[in-house]
This record gives sequence, structure tokens and C-alpha cells, in this order.
Amino acid sequence: MNCSILTIGDELLIGQVVNTNAAYISRQLNTIGIDVVRMVTIGDEEQVMRSAIQESFARVDLTIVTGGLGPTHDDITKKVLCNFFQTELVRSEEVIEDINHLLQRRNLVWSAATETQALVPKSAQIIRNNNGTAPGLFFEQNEHYLIAMPGVPFEMEAMMQDFVVPLFKSKSKKFILHRTLNTTGIGEAVLFEKLGNLKELLDNVKLAFLPSPSGTRLRLSIIETTQESAERQIKQAEENIRAKTDEYIYGVENETMADAIGTLLKEKQLTISTAESCTGGYIANQITNVSGSSEYFERGIITYSNRSKMELLDVPKEMLEQHGSVSKEVAEAMASGVRTKTGTDIGISTTGIAGPTGGTPEKPLGLVFIGYSDKKMTLALKFHFGDNRLRFKERTAQAALNLLRKKLLQHD
Amino acid sequence: MNCSILTIGDELLIGQVVNTNAAYISRQLNTIGIDVVRMVTIGDEEQVMRSAIQESFARVDLTIVTGGLGPTHDDITKKVLCNFFQTELVRSEEVIEDINHLLQRRNLVWSAATETQALVPKSAQIIRNNNGTAPGLFFEQNEHYLIAMPGVPFEMEAMMQDFVVPLFKSKSKKFILHRTLNTTGIGEAVLFEKLGNLKELLDNVKLAFLPSPSGTRLRLSIIETTQESAERQIKQAEENIRAKTDEYIYGVENETMADAIGTLLKEKQLTISTAESCTGGYIANQITNVSGSSEYFERGIITYSNRSKMELLDVPKEMLEQHGSVSKEVAEAMASGVRTKTGTDIGISTTGIAGPTGGTPEKPLGLVFIGYSDKKMTLALKFHFGDNRLRFKERTAQAALNLLRKKLLQHD
Repeated sequence: MNCSILTIGDELLIGQVVNTNAAYISRQLNTIGIDVVRMVTIGDEEQVMRSAIQESFARVDLTIVTGGLGPTHDDITKKVLCNFFQTELVRSEEVIEDINHLLQRRNLVWSAATETQALVPKSAQIIRNNNGTAPGLFFEQNEHYLIAMPGVPFEMEAMMQDFVVPLFKSKSKKFILHRTLNTTGIGEAVLFEKLGNLKELLDNVKLAFLPSPSGTRLRLSIIETTQESAERQIKQAEENIRAKTDEYIYGVENETMADAIGTLLKEKQLTISTAESCTGGYIANQITNVSGSSEYFERGIITYSNRSKMELLDVPKEMLEQHGSVSKEVAEAMASGVRTKTGTDIGISTTGIAGPTGGTPEKPLGLVFIGYSDKKMTLALKFHFGDNRLRFKERTAQAALNLLRKKLLQHD
Repeated sequence: MNCSILTIGDELLIGQVVNTNAAYISRQLNTIGIDVVRMVTIGDEEQVMRSAIQESFARVDLTIVTGGLGPTHDDITKKVLCNFFQTELVRSEEVIEDINHLLQRRNLVWSAATETQALVPKSAQIIRNNNGTAPGLFFEQNEHYLIAMPGVPFEMEAMMQDFVVPLFKSKSKKFILHRTLNTTGIGEAVLFEKLGNLKELLDNVKLAFLPSPSGTRLRLSIIETTQESAERQIKQAEENIRAKTDEYIYGVENETMADAIGTLLKEKQLTISTAESCTGGYIANQITNVSGSSEYFERGIITYSNRSKMELLDVPKEMLEQHGSVSKEVAEAMASGVRTKTGTDIGISTTGIAGPTGGTPEKPLGLVFIGYSDKKMTLALKFHFGDNRLRFKERTAQAALNLLRKKLLQHD
């Protein structure tokens, strides 16, 4: 069974909103063996929308449409669908009930705009929406299916989980399996070379390289008729790849570096604290994105000023004057300072020049020192991470957490 | 002049990577009056790619292709383009020079995989890449244009800025103008109602509603023949909208809440510090994403444990025992504690239950108190922000910064 995703909205076409919905839908369909073969984005225009729906409905088994179901004037999906399926809008008591329930929970009042949400195409089955006022719609015609959902991500996501995935799970006959290995600290081309003969490593498994500022992800994929055969082949390919590049692999699937260090810290029953200058809370935010992080994350300090480095971390004034705040010495003092002052097992720190201004010939934009301290050692490493402020923060955080990960692996 | 964007890569189709490139390209083209009418995503398959390129090249003036130019086996764009334009691959000395220069700067070595990057289609003009090894390609045939760029975002972005935008600026004859007003603290439907008669407000200007967990953005758009006329009409529409909803508008265009408070803090020469519990550094990270934030952001404290709340913020032990760490009292004590201990003008704080576990009947998941303290007052507000950990952090941070913004507007 194959699928085409049609996302609707001028906000996507002019690039104001990034299309995260298509990616989410795809991931969900993939888990039940439905192949997304095309994603198309078009604007809020009736004629264009109608011809795109027509084309997709004829070409693939399942067409998923998102967007244009809201309560405002620029939402025209229901109208186009009524035309296409030759049906009319009717008032749904079921939807009215759901909306009333939602408004009560949120302490909101019924509005005229909300009223239009209760109108649905007569021939459609309703997909209930527990997170917003616009219901989803399901059409079926000669074993071709069309699903329309709101464009608001978490509303659409709940409908995918509660309705679409369970419904189509039974209709799909193929088994698609993916496995992703997340690497960091090595370039894409060098990684490719280290792997060597891919045919030998992979057999029937497909491999893709997905580079980003945080590292390169390796995605293994296979399409099979049985789950067992797919799993066996993917497992073999993963083993072959790990044999050559294991030291660079910090996690699998959507596991972040923060997930990986969280697992290690819990396993080894260690606690950690952070002292961030240039990353300004990025690292702590990553760490605390992980549910359960309060078990090992005691506190984080963001010392943007020199004064705060002295007061909160006991970095000596003379050190700051002699070496400057962006230096190996200060990074080490920050890491050991935060560790000893908090009584945690480990401290990590960052100090650098995030830009886009503030560089000098000796200390250029992008220069950063990452500090690490535990009971046995304190050290700092030097990196250059470029002059884009946000990318600099991301790369620095990833390198700091990776340094931590390597040290944790060596830890008793 | 119109354009179609073709993004290539199985990683997009299976939803592993979100298509940020298409949005970026669109935004850039929009500024020079080029209309993106369609975005299509397809996989790394030769036949599919060729027919998509064929279709797009015939249909629109400008086709932009990203992805599939890397050094690995799954990168087949150059091959497809050679077939389509009936040309062949040749070794480019110019590209070799660029690659050598890049490798030197990064302390990397030449590899066999890198070698394939130096092969380019003979009839293409080369778009130089200062950030990676794959050059971009520019084809022209009977006033139809095709541009192929790498899929790595910052490589593609630099090519857009340095080559594509300057080249096509002169070829475009229309003038497209957008203006976005960013609102928060009000639902989409209520906002729609507050605006009332849109025809009166907008005249020829188009309005779109873009909801997200951080708030709803209002986008005004117009297509005109002159810049002057477009600007005049957009300005009038903005004034009409502000007359009805100004209190909810915190910024324009891509201005974040952190940008807005940064501007206000500088203007009023005030400094700030943060004490975060449940947001775990999210707020400090937002604040320090703004270049120049070191002028007003002194330090941030992330107090995940009760001990750290006592030690770093002087929150009394009895208060924590009596009211619990998630309480109005503790939020206030944290905000005033961080302010007085750091000597900044303002302190803000968060304490809540981010989930997905840890809720109780009295203090359910999603409950959060946001504290604010300046020399004249200390207060805390209570919110409920749902049970999704990451969305909870985002909504809490946005509400905290919005509270700060409102207080700053009242500040002398």
C-alpha cells in the first residue's frame, strides 16, 4: 500500500512554517509498512487544491491531506472535498459535543467561528479531535482512501495515533523496517571510507547517510514480507557496521545524546551539574528534555558574566585576568568549581565565543573550551565551531555531551 | 516568475528528516518576488527523480533541486541531471581547488569519496561551496532554469545568499510583500472574532492565521507591481489590526519573544537573571540565542533539586516543606532570590510539573507557577500547560517571557 501526503497552506509555500507534519505522518505510516512515495505542498487555492487531490487520489492507495480545516476564512479544505466527493456539509451533533467538552476543559466560550467547525461533509466518517475544534475526515471510494486532518501538529498527531495507524495496520501487507545509528565526531566522507565495501556489509539492506551539525546518522532500511526476515537482516548489517565504527555511535533511532548520557548516568548511579557560559543553558535544556533527568541532574549554572563565574564557581579573579574568560584554565576551573560546589560526581563546562561579534585574532569567533571534571581528573578540550551563533551552540553542546559520554564509558 | 522546489531524499520520505530546506528557499525567493507554487519531495530513485525534474522543468520558470549531491553511493542527482540535460561528467579544477582549501581549513585529508565531488556536468555552471565539498549546479535552457544544491542546510543557505538570490533578483518583475504579527496569550478563534470584519480591515491584503504552542502569528500578504503601493497597503492593514489586538502582539516577522524582551531590556537599561526549575534552561537558552544578550543577561540558575533551591536562591526549607516546590510561594521566593543574590534589576522563575510522570490530584501534570520580581514587586502566576514534556517547556517559557515583557512595558 502506498501513500501520498498533501500539505496545504500558503504559510508552507512562503516558507514561514516548516513542514513537520509530513515527516511525522510518514514516520507513523512507515511503522505499519505503508510506503510514502511523494509529499506535495500547495497553497490555499481552490483550483490547485482540487487538481492535486484528484491527481493523488487516482495515483496512490491512500491520500493524506493536512491543513485548511481551521475556523477562519482561509480554511477551504472542506469545501474542496465536498466538491470532489460530490457531497454537502451537514451539522454534526457528535462534533458539537466534542467541541463543548473541549471548551469546558479549557475554560473557553463558544464562538461563531467555532460553529463552522461543526459542519462536516455528509459522506465522510468523522475522526474525533480531543485537542482542538476541527474534526478529521475519512473518505473511502473503491479501495482508495482519503484522510483530511487539521494542520496543528499535536491535533493531527493524536488522530494519527488513535485512528489512522490502527485502521491501516490491517490493510498493509508489506513489512518495512528501519534502523538508525547516530554518530558524532566524524565527517560523512571519512565515515563512508571507514565502512569500506558496502555490498559486503549490507547485502540487501539499504544504507543512507544523514549529516547534520550534531553528527551523521546512518539509516539502514529493508522491505520484506515477514518481520522475522527483516529483523534478521537489519541486525546483521548493524553488527557489520558497528564492527568498523562503533566508537562513533552514541545512540540509535531518535535517541539524542542527552538520552544516551542519561542512560549511562542512571546505570552508573552518578550525578552531574553544568556550568555554561557560551551555550547559555542549551546543554541543561537538552539534559532536562529527558524525562527522569531529575534523578541525575542536580543543577545547572549559566555564568554569562565574569562576576558570576567568580561568585558561583569560585573561578579566581587572577585567572580570568591572566588568561581571559575563554581559556583552557577557566573551562577547567568552571567544571571543577560546579562539581565541588554542588557535591555532584561530575561537572561539565563551556566557555567560548558564540558570535556573530566579539572575536579577536588570538581568540576568533567559534573558539570554545569544553571542561570536564570528576573525582579523579579535570581537563578541558579546545574546539572551533564556526561563526553561526545557533549552530555554534548546538555543536558545542553536542561535543560537551559526547566528551561526557566517553568519560562515562570509561568510568567504573 | 514562478518556482517549484524539488527536495530529494529517502530520509525526507520516511520522515526521519524534516524538510527545512524547502521553507528556507521559499523565504529567500519570496523576498525577490518569486512565487513558489509547489514543493515536492521524492526518494533517491532514478526514474522517479527524472520524471519529477521533467515535469517541473516544463511547468515552471525555475526548478530548484536539493539533495543527492553528496559523496556517497546514494547520491544520484548528478547522474540524473546529466541524462536530462544530455551532458557528461567532467573533472573541475575549480572545484578541486575549493575542496583543497576547505580540507586545509578543517584539518582534514583528501579521500577517494571526496574525489567524486570534483566531477560535474559539463553544461552546468558551477555554484561554489565554501562550506562543504559538493558544488552546486546551474542549468539554463530556453529561459527555463534549474539549480541543484546540496541538501546540507548551511551549505545550501550560503549558495542561496551568494548566488541564487542575486542572480534572480534582476529577472523577477513582481513585488511580493509579507508582514507577520506575532501574538501570544490568545486563542486563534477568539483572535479571529476580535478582528471582526476582515474585508474592512484588509482591503486587498490577504491574512492568514498560523497557530503554534507559542501563540498565533498573523501573516499579511500582498502582490503588487510597485514596492511603494505594496508597502502602503500592508501598513494600513497592520494599523487596522493593531487597533483591535495590539496588546497580544509581541513582535513582528521572525522576532522571537526573547528578541522582544532583549530590545526592551536594552532600551530601559535593565538587567535580568533567571531561576528555572521545570523549564531546565529553556528560558536562558532562548534569551542567550539573541546576539548581544550578555549586555542584560547576567546569569541563570537551574535548580532542579530542592537543595539547590535553598543553597542558590535562599528558598526557606520550611516553605518547601509546607507548600511543596511547585507552589506560588516558592516561585516568588525563587524570583526574588535570584534577583537579590545576583544584584540584577529583575528576576524570573519557573516551577512546575513537566511530566510525563509526577502529577498528583492536587498538583496535576502541566501545573506551573511563573514568578517575577523587581525592586517594587514580587508575584507569581499559575498556569496549566498540558502533559507533553517538550511542549510544556515551550509554553511555560513563552508565558514567562511574555509576563516579563508586559512588566517591562509598564516599567519606567
